Amino acid sequence: MTRILFYLDGYPHDVWRQCIHAIDPEVDFIGNPDWGNPEDGPAYAFVWEPEPGLLARYPNIKAIFSLGAGIDHLTRDPDLPKDVPIIRMGDEGLKEGMAEYVLMNVLMHHRQTPQLIKAQRQHEWKRVFSLAAKDVRIGILGYGALGQRAAKVLAPMGYNLAAWSRSPKSDDSVQHFTGMDELDNFLARTDILVGLLPSTPETEGLMDFDRLSRLPEGASVINAGRGSLIVLDDLKALLDSGYIAGASLDVFPEEPLPKDHALWDYDNVIITPHSAAITRPDTAAEYVLRNIKRIENGEEPENLLNTNLGY
Amino acid sequence: MTRILFYLDGYPHDVWRQCIHAIDPEVDFIGNPDWGNPEDGPAYAFVWEPEPGLLARYPNIKAIFSLGAGIDHLTRDPDLPKDVPIIRMGDEGLKEGMAEYVLMNVLMHHRQTPQLIKAQRQHEWKRVFSLAAKDVRIGILGYGALGQRAAKVLAPMGYNLAAWSRSPKSDDSVQHFTGMDELDNFLARTDILVGLLPSTPETEGLMDFDRLSRLPEGASVINAGRGSLIVLDDLKALLDSGYIAGASLDVFPEEPLPKDHALWDYDNVIITPHSAAITRPDTAAEYVLRNIKRIENGEEPENLLNTNLGY
Repeated sequence: MTRILFYLDGYPHDVWRQCIHAIDPEVDFIGNPDWGNPEDGPAYAFVWEPEPGLLARYPNIKAIFSLGAGIDHLTRDPDLPKDVPIIRMGDEGLKEGMAEYVLMNVLMHHRQTPQLIKAQRQHEWKRVFSLAAKDVRIGILGYGALGQRAAKVLAPMGYNLAAWSRSPKSDDSVQHFTGMDELDNFLARTDILVGLLPSTPETEGLMDFDRLSRLPEGASVINAGRGSLIVLDDLKALLDSGYIAGASLDVFPEEPLPKDHALWDYDNVIITPHSAAITRPDTAAEYVLRNIKRIENGEEPENLLNTNLGY
Repeated sequence: MTRILFYLDGYPHDVWRQCIHAIDPEVDFIGNPDWGNPEDGPAYAFVWEPEPGLLARYPNIKAIFSLGAGIDHLTRDPDLPKDVPIIRMGDEGLKEGMAEYVLMNVLMHHRQTPQLIKAQRQHEWKRVFSLAAKDVRIGILGYGALGQRAAKVLAPMGYNLAAWSRSPKSDDSVQHFTGMDELDNFLARTDILVGLLPSTPETEGLMDFDRLSRLPEGASVINAGRGSLIVLDDLKALLDSGYIAGASLDVFPEEPLPKDHALWDYDNVIITPHSAAITRPDTAAEYVLRNIKRIENGEEPENLLNTNLGY
């Protein structure tokens, strides 16, 4: 019998339990706060922001599934067991939700929707003229599963697409830039930047004043990966000067974004509460049970954390 | 030599002349206010909201090209020549722009963006959970060239799609409803309605209180065809009661929408100034010259007005 130790604060567990049991009613689904006796048999952890030290107290955990695509909520636990495999979420719902968020926000900046919403507030009937999609250069910064899925929905719209990633990718459906050497060239040809990078020591503060200034004047910035990517004060300065035309921010260095942060009031900035892509219980349950099976069969699970790269 | 009598008020003509000449430098491009001697040789009119009676004064006009997809700006001229073919705009730019507008607004209502923008204004970090795309039923009301193009960009997102049109269509890529008999069933299965109907006696006021109430509670309404489709006071009443969750309106019974109209201030209504799809001079020039050639060759032009149907 499969045992799942589930951890999620602030949201009900029932829907998660139901989705797991809809697929396999035999699973022993144990939610926090009480995970029971640490000496009980083997189990899989399925967690979001677990209390630091908790996972270390359960030596029979065979693998840790993150409830989201990011795993920084795990790696900031100093007592995180070193030898237990960690699996990032990669369910269909998450990928689909991210593709929706990216496409919607690209369209909103391309079609000048923040300006139109501002004009509406002032009861102003003011037409704006937008470029043809083929003349809008989208740059996807971070080209893993989520970036590739975003490209798939952006391409049919006719946008001029490129992607940047740390390491080369075999996919050649978009123009590709690789490694730090090619980052500046990638930014120089990008009108709408889509940040989808994980949080690692290399990506922290990567988009600072200097790098944001490599974008052409009038560019827009979307960030839905991790808030640590962008130095928020630098982005704010470039919005204030008008060099950057607008932004869509779903993630922040500090979450929730503090109540008194100036960016809340920017008409040309669309702020969402880290909800671009929310793991869906139905597709996530399928994903977790499918990968538990792979582990039990001695196969490698999908989206296994590479501890050297940190993602 | 081809002669084009061009009419457009309030916008410069240069870009239009340049786009025509980029394809055929020999064209004699004559813009309002002075179309010259009515007795001059054969010509094609290419017009937007021409002064009533003007077209009747030029007996050598062989065909009238509308600068937009709608032709109500022509048919309201009591002196409009009865025997001159009228061709609706069908350039690529118009279709592409409409597809962008429809997809963006469907995504915005599906992903509850108006609520998120409202929360932002109040500095509130409040997550919302949205349905999977497959569980969102989109209904395209009016399935001509624009509706079919919208369906093409909606389908890859995984939405549950249906379309309604007056007459049967051969396209069977979406669930299809036809004629007044099937309108109520179409509305009853539609969570997000996309209005793309032309202005005709049949469509005027079609979506009144009764018909809007056939939509399920919590539905949203997008209108980008003609403003006459929706009885605006009825929509407002259903927004006030909360039965209709939100709307995106690009067209209105009276344009511009009057400065003091209550809907400007609705957080859940996105108002744009009839700019969902703006004819693009480059693709429109190509369209007009291509269809002049068809007429000269004795072929039927694209999107020829059927005067019996009124579109």
